[in-house]
Amino acid sequence: MNILLVGKKSGAEQFIADGCAEYEKRLNSSMKLSTTYLKTDNELVEKAKSLKGCVFALDENGREYTSRDFSKVIYNGFEEGGSHIGFIIGGFSGLPQQIKGNFKLVSLSRMTFTHQFARLLLLEQIYRAAEIHKGSGYHKD
Amino acid sequence: MNILLVGKKSGAEQFIADGCAEYEKRLNSSMKLSTTYLKTDNELVEKAKSLKGCVFALDENGREYTSRDFSKVIYNGFEEGGSHIGFIIGGFSGLPQQIKGNFKLVSLSRMTFTHQFARLLLLEQIYRAAEIHKGSGYHKD
Repeated sequence: MNILLVGKKSGAEQFIADGCAEYEKRLNSSMKLSTTYLKTDNELVEKAKSLKGCVFALDENGREYTSRDFSKVIYNGFEEGGSHIGFIIGGFSGLPQQIKGNFKLVSLSRMTFTHQFARLLLLEQIYRAAEIHKGSGYHKD
Repeated sequence: MNILLVGKKSGAEQFIADGCAEYEKRLNSSMKLSTTYLKTDNELVEKAKSLKGCVFALDENGREYTSRDFSKVIYNGFEEGGSHIGFIIGGFSGLPQQIKGNFKLVSLSRMTFTHQFARLLLLEQIYRAAEIHKGSGYHKD
């Protein structure tokens, strides 16, 4: 799984960096995960074209899922996309129009978060998705 | 503003405790904020009865707001409730039925988070609400 993000790795506040690192560590045994930081919207648009498999873009007007349905979306995505899934997170100005028109839009919430905070939220939900898939007790309906 | 939470203060992971402390510090000049930790659902139900002003309970099936609307909800709440607002966050088993039936239900997301993570999300949105109210550049539509 590859996450594309407009921003700097060093731009995240410490607690966000720590939280993301924690979920990445926990996900280590379930899936390969990487994050690519892009400097500009143009770089994001170019890089997004090279993503393989199922690609989703985070947008507050995108489709909302429960955590259980999001888990299905991810694991169906792995099957359809030959183990490849991508997530795109826009920068301060939101998603570029070329991204909005070309990828499935997913909303984590109707509320707005900073893009770094959105990455933390996304990683918690990907970790939750993996635990739901495993049938562990982490998620409770 | 008082946040009621079933759980232990020491039960939060370090990055969540750090993040919450960061938003509480930033909110210090905008509003008085406190968190009360309860041991059981019964204690939560009892304590909730003593909350003054407008009280909201977090529930994934509650009403969703955009960050801008959530800011209005909070500042209208301060006016109606004589500066008092309460938020109730349930524990691992969700909100007790006696809470669900008696308070306005607000949803941060259709997705599920741990109750400690929900506190972090809530605090970010309360901070965002304060910045929207001030008209600062933190929030961008």
